[in-house]
Amino acid sequence: MEFTSVSVVGAGRVGSAVAARLAGRVSTRTTGRELEVGDADLVLLCVPDRAIAEVAAAVPTGPWVAHTSGAHTLEELDPHERRFSVHPLQTFTRSRGPEQLDGAWAAVSGENEEALAAGFRLAELLELRPFELDDEERALYHAAAAVASNYLVTIHWAAEELFRAAGAPPEALEPLMRRTVENGFELTGPIARGDWVTVERHLAEIRARRPQLEPMYRALADVTATVAAL
Amino acid sequence: MEFTSVSVVGAGRVGSAVAARLAGRVSTRTTGRELEVGDADLVLLCVPDRAIAEVAAAVPTGPWVAHTSGAHTLEELDPHERRFSVHPLQTFTRSRGPEQLDGAWAAVSGENEEALAAGFRLAELLELRPFELDDEERALYHAAAAVASNYLVTIHWAAEELFRAAGAPPEALEPLMRRTVENGFELTGPIARGDWVTVERHLAEIRARRPQLEPMYRALADVTATVAAL
Repeated sequence: MEFTSVSVVGAGRVGSAVAARLAGRVSTRTTGRELEVGDADLVLLCVPDRAIAEVAAAVPTGPWVAHTSGAHTLEELDPHERRFSVHPLQTFTRSRGPEQLDGAWAAVSGENEEALAAGFRLAELLELRPFELDDEERALYHAAAAVASNYLVTIHWAAEELFRAAGAPPEALEPLMRRTVENGFELTGPIARGDWVTVERHLAEIRARRPQLEPMYRALADVTATVAAL
Repeated sequence: MEFTSVSVVGAGRVGSAVAARLAGRVSTRTTGRELEVGDADLVLLCVPDRAIAEVAAAVPTGPWVAHTSGAHTLEELDPHERRFSVHPLQTFTRSRGPEQLDGAWAAVSGENEEALAAGFRLAELLELRPFELDDEERALYHAAAAVASNYLVTIHWAAEELFRAAGAPPEALEPLMRRTVENGFELTGPIARGDWVTVERHLAEIRARRPQLEPMYRALADVTATVAAL
């Protein structure tokens, strides 16, 4: 299984990084919605989730067709039968290039061995670490990715808010969060020690000063109690 | 303001790192609850939060007395009047040494200029980056630290749980979480895009497969909507 010519549709955060990585490795073209597919043996849709079905339907049948969505299933690629999906499990920024793909994993879904092989081959071309994901599990998988990345941003912001309220410098939080990752996500702090008196004092302060954060703090405390009991 | 002899009480995660960092810089002794204070000009209590008041009361008055608790106020150090607190804003593990202090910030509280100067001096000896924290703000400050570190562990665990349920490899989450930090906590994903249809599909899957995580997902989604609107 080898791709010789890939047409990348979409030039957003993912499409730009993917096209830059493929350039020089295979014949590539980046195309807009006008769809210049040419002689591509793979048409890779890096378009917004809501546009996948429409763009896929406009691609002439023949080449492999794939998408890079984490949340959507292969059905979006109808009527194509030679199809798969490769979702790079990473957060992308416009200020960085294809090196953003380095070290990231990728969820590959396909409906038969040939499609999975095609998906793994694309992931390897992109220098991603592929794993197979059941197409029906994409929503649950994507929920987990949102928890890990988007909600990490959210707890950082919430901690910054509380620091601002307390008169502490928000930038002081970053070394703490980096080390928490580096230490292999080892749980420390009041809940790990079973110190619920301190948790109640946190809640009382949050309720008094930033009440909009109380439900989040409380829901996370409940799950943390499960983690502490492991 | 210079310390020449420090007696570190407690040899837990923080006490061990602190004592190792001070060794060779000042005369130090590490002491248990028996309290061999000797000629120390600072007695630094790195004991569990619940033990601070009892241990402080047992220290003969004279030297500076300080604690390293994030949550507790200076009142715990009664009856001492030459007192302050320095809380290293970091998570500590027993498998690492004093280098754990490098790059970390520290919250310093004191009731007068002399006490604050003493606290800043200790923080500098430890190679921490000190900032002043109002003693009355410690509970709110500590709540933020718990959100940033402990709840980071919790969301990682929750994402792993969902990955296990979906048949995806949990270790694939780490590069995503590291990059989220490296990218300056830039929010991406469905809520950043205003894609609440995807959020509802996440919720439906979580409810069906790991219902104990639904309140946490939902509370975090609410706060994330605030972040997305900034």
